[in-house]
Amino acid sequence: MSDSSLKNKIEFILVEPSHPGNIGASARAIKNMGFKNLSLINPKDFPNDESFYRAKGAKDILENVKIYQDLTGSLKDATLIFGTSARTRTIPWPTKTSSELTKILKTALENINTKICFVFGREISGLTNEELQLCDYHLKIPTDESFSSLNLSHAVQIISYVIKMEIDNINSTTELKDETQTFQDNEYLIDHFDKVMKLIDFYDQENPKQVRTRVRRLIKRLQPDNLETGILRGFLSKIEQILNKKN
Amino acid sequence: MSDSSLKNKIEFILVEPSHPGNIGASARAIKNMGFKNLSLINPKDFPNDESFYRAKGAKDILENVKIYQDLTGSLKDATLIFGTSARTRTIPWPTKTSSELTKILKTALENINTKICFVFGREISGLTNEELQLCDYHLKIPTDESFSSLNLSHAVQIISYVIKMEIDNINSTTELKDETQTFQDNEYLIDHFDKVMKLIDFYDQENPKQVRTRVRRLIKRLQPDNLETGILRGFLSKIEQILNKKN
Repeated sequence: MSDSSLKNKIEFILVEPSHPGNIGASARAIKNMGFKNLSLINPKDFPNDESFYRAKGAKDILENVKIYQDLTGSLKDATLIFGTSARTRTIPWPTKTSSELTKILKTALENINTKICFVFGREISGLTNEELQLCDYHLKIPTDESFSSLNLSHAVQIISYVIKMEIDNINSTTELKDETQTFQDNEYLIDHFDKVMKLIDFYDQENPKQVRTRVRRLIKRLQPDNLETGILRGFLSKIEQILNKKN
Repeated sequence: MSDSSLKNKIEFILVEPSHPGNIGASARAIKNMGFKNLSLINPKDFPNDESFYRAKGAKDILENVKIYQDLTGSLKDATLIFGTSARTRTIPWPTKTSSELTKILKTALENINTKICFVFGREISGLTNEELQLCDYHLKIPTDESFSSLNLSHAVQIISYVIKMEIDNINSTTELKDETQTFQDNEYLIDHFDKVMKLIDFYDQENPKQVRTRVRRLIKRLQPDNLETGILRGFLSKIEQILNKKN
């Protein structure tokens, strides 16, 4: 399935946002991550110039926003609902080693008529218990414990970023590049350094084995691409040329 | 090492921010993720009430902000510098299956005197080429290709979130080393390569600017330690000696 048709199954819902600026900044945030569906539940002040100003290039998201009087109304055809919450009853935030979220999303996205909603609470008071109970899962953004209150549009930005990464990951086909040097190319480069270091008697001054080993490690770590290998070998050849001519 | 002492090695730098609101929102964003160091390069309007309003509970970050006239000034004791950029030559963004960033951060955080900087460009025009070249690595936040322009404080939020997740993930039991090269040491090494390449007329053969830029990037990526820098500079000095004697 195409990336954008998967992303169109995702909806972001802001419950009673107070600040029009946050609505615009949230529209921009989701569009930056390739999403387009935004719903507002009983916004305090919308439409408002400040929303459109803060949306920048995401004014189309605001023009197509859906507005509902209560959260239940917006969830009618939702098949999977996540509430963002500072509460403890949450699924574990995805990490490198474990992601329950990936499994849940993957299963949901495999269905044709999926609509996955991410619900965000009020700037000051978040979601009520009743609203949280409408959600299938709760997500708590991992903030610093001593200062956990995120700006609404910043919370939307982190969630939309994480969901984008999850969808990209679900969709990913590894792209092969053809510019890494092989083992043998690196060995030639290491040998070339060794040859020039001998030519200039560099090893006389120092512990030769240590220097050789260090240069080897350094090139292994560097993993030069084709162009870089060309520059380094050209540099070494030029030094050889000059010194051989002078001798 | 404790989590907060690792986080104190991280610094966020905003280059010429135009909107005071973005400065405040960025302060809040980094504090939400447990960071505290914020520097401003030549801000257009700071201090400003709007900054403090948008910072909410992160006013302490703004009160302790450092202000510089140019980016170079803020990087004096930096040991590792990331520029955020929409350019293509970047290190791969960390994913579940691969993270070069983890390795780079882990190595850097093992050192005692590490100062890791994340540099963010102007709202409209980003970082200049000269500023990007001061950075060891470029990071491109993976946005939707058709709408990649993130709000400044939202970019700060994503990067600080990702770095928090990386640090949380890093098992920091490894012994501390004291051998990282500073920004200035790397600049000396780059200059030394440049000098020798001129001495051997290496630039005549190729597109000089491209070669110089490539060598710069290569050394920035390599992040040589003290011993390796010593070997490379000794090697270059020895070539100079021989050629100067022969001429």
